[in-house]
Amino acid sequence: MKRVGIMGYGNLGRGVECALKHSRDMKLKAVFTRRNPDSIDVKTEGVSVVSAADADKWQGEIDVMILCGGSATDLRGQSVEYGGMFNIVDSFDSHGDIVRHFKDVDRAAVNGGKLAVISAGWDPGLFSLARVYGQAVLPEGQSQTFWGKGLSQGHSDAIRRIDGVVDARQYTIPLEEAVKKAREGKASHLTAGEKHRRQCFVVAREGADRDRIRAEIISMPNYFVDYETIVEFITEAELVRDHSSMAHGGFVIRTGRSGWELQEKNVIEYKLDLESNPEFTGSVLTAVARAVCVMAGEGQRGCRSMLDIPPSYLLPQTREELLSSIM
Amino acid sequence: MKRVGIMGYGNLGRGVECALKHSRDMKLKAVFTRRNPDSIDVKTEGVSVVSAADADKWQGEIDVMILCGGSATDLRGQSVEYGGMFNIVDSFDSHGDIVRHFKDVDRAAVNGGKLAVISAGWDPGLFSLARVYGQAVLPEGQSQTFWGKGLSQGHSDAIRRIDGVVDARQYTIPLEEAVKKAREGKASHLTAGEKHRRQCFVVAREGADRDRIRAEIISMPNYFVDYETIVEFITEAELVRDHSSMAHGGFVIRTGRSGWELQEKNVIEYKLDLESNPEFTGSVLTAVARAVCVMAGEGQRGCRSMLDIPPSYLLPQTREELLSSIM
Repeated sequence: MKRVGIMGYGNLGRGVECALKHSRDMKLKAVFTRRNPDSIDVKTEGVSVVSAADADKWQGEIDVMILCGGSATDLRGQSVEYGGMFNIVDSFDSHGDIVRHFKDVDRAAVNGGKLAVISAGWDPGLFSLARVYGQAVLPEGQSQTFWGKGLSQGHSDAIRRIDGVVDARQYTIPLEEAVKKAREGKASHLTAGEKHRRQCFVVAREGADRDRIRAEIISMPNYFVDYETIVEFITEAELVRDHSSMAHGGFVIRTGRSGWELQEKNVIEYKLDLESNPEFTGSVLTAVARAVCVMAGEGQRGCRSMLDIPPSYLLPQTREELLSSIM
Repeated sequence: MKRVGIMGYGNLGRGVECALKHSRDMKLKAVFTRRNPDSIDVKTEGVSVVSAADADKWQGEIDVMILCGGSATDLRGQSVEYGGMFNIVDSFDSHGDIVRHFKDVDRAAVNGGKLAVISAGWDPGLFSLARVYGQAVLPEGQSQTFWGKGLSQGHSDAIRRIDGVVDARQYTIPLEEAVKKAREGKASHLTAGEKHRRQCFVVAREGADRDRIRAEIISMPNYFVDYETIVEFITEAELVRDHSSMAHGGFVIRTGRSGWELQEKNVIEYKLDLESNPEFTGSVLTAVARAVCVMAGEGQRGCRSMLDIPPSYLLPQTREELLSSIM
């Protein structure tokens, strides 16, 4: 039974806790937090809640630590710090910064004699795998990734920073016309803005100028200006009632050609439809934590990604069980 | 540049040849055949066509041999024979016999100091991976595999063996109602016959009793009796004109629940839509052959499946290229 630690007890940490409850070969040993441990109520019985500052004292008690902080503020530092003490898994998802993060974590893990897997989850993660397998088996082609329909935390936060906004939710929605083009292999010229629509539900402060808020949203660089953006004002009660879902999803389409003259078209689609984004991501991190234990047991040290993990390592079954039941 | 051999030059062998043409790091060295080598015209310039009986003389010239024979008659023997001489890849697809085949090939490969990957392709192969990843990240759930719409070689052959049949094509078609149930996680009780329809196009000999032929088809054990089966008689000219396509496809649906009380539903779908089944399968075998070279270079010996291959090994790019471009 592998002993797992959770660092950070937000939505993702609670998702990992749920996944561990339903795992037969791993158990939650301790939850680590930067908050006051006495303020944290974990669901699993008999689990310690420990101050993150005391994590180093738990090095002999934890086989793998799952870091459940955010990429924007937590993981760049935490994965380096704890990657030297524990075998770790993180869900670092700032695509442009992954190479740098990989190198930093690799150095820490090699120095500490530990193994780390970064950027686990669904994108990066399962969608990266879909892109790798797609490119491997259809090298003459293109991959297109679509996100949604689902809530974007980063875009919701950006709207909340606008003066006069009390709260907001932003949904990313794939454009059907672009999906059709991707299946036909004719989407390589499309920008993210030509592939998705952005739907915003905004709670404005009483008396705030809604036209100005709308104008600020749709003209916001990077976030909205390049997208078809729809802004709708609702009440706080409506926001709580209709927009508390953690649902998300998306899909990767690989369209590629085969044959001597590349005359035949082949399409691979990998699609996720999730009622709970944090629970599903937590479940992916838990499966990866299992693989980390196997690979660390083989003597592997340093940093890896899901692209380096033999798929069978993600499951507790033996090779013969997998060959007979699932192959 | 890795030197690849093709054993068997039928549809699949020609598919591998096409994939090698479009590969930047592998080249076709020789085609091996049990037919008279002089009767074989390969498309690639400068490639030897060699009698299969002389394969052992090519041990120093081939980094990996891709076996392109059929599972029913060729691979059980060939993979054991050539798996002791070469690093090999095969597409053995008799699901119930995979464990036995694995053990036999493993023994031969270990004895010969070689590495083999068996059962590569799309099912088993990419669909096995979809089932493994699906079960790993949604352990509380069920996987359902659907095939088609596409031509089934085995079922077409079975019809051809009926007295009075000149030629035949059988298409396997997923039933929309069953697909809907699979997405809802309510398909675990469905048999293959409740998930698929079988559509048969038959050319009968002039004067043959069509009612008898139809009755023999729809009552055939294993192949048709448990399925909704549609039989249509056509002319030989129509068969050639309308039913020469090698298109196939299918999908794996994993539906699983997450959360403390498993209250949330999550669905993963992996779908293939192929204009050329043998070219696509050949392309998968070629990517696997690349991985075999890497793994053999690491000193791995014996038998493996695609479940054992780190995904990044299927591509020629470096880890840093993959992390920055595709992760």
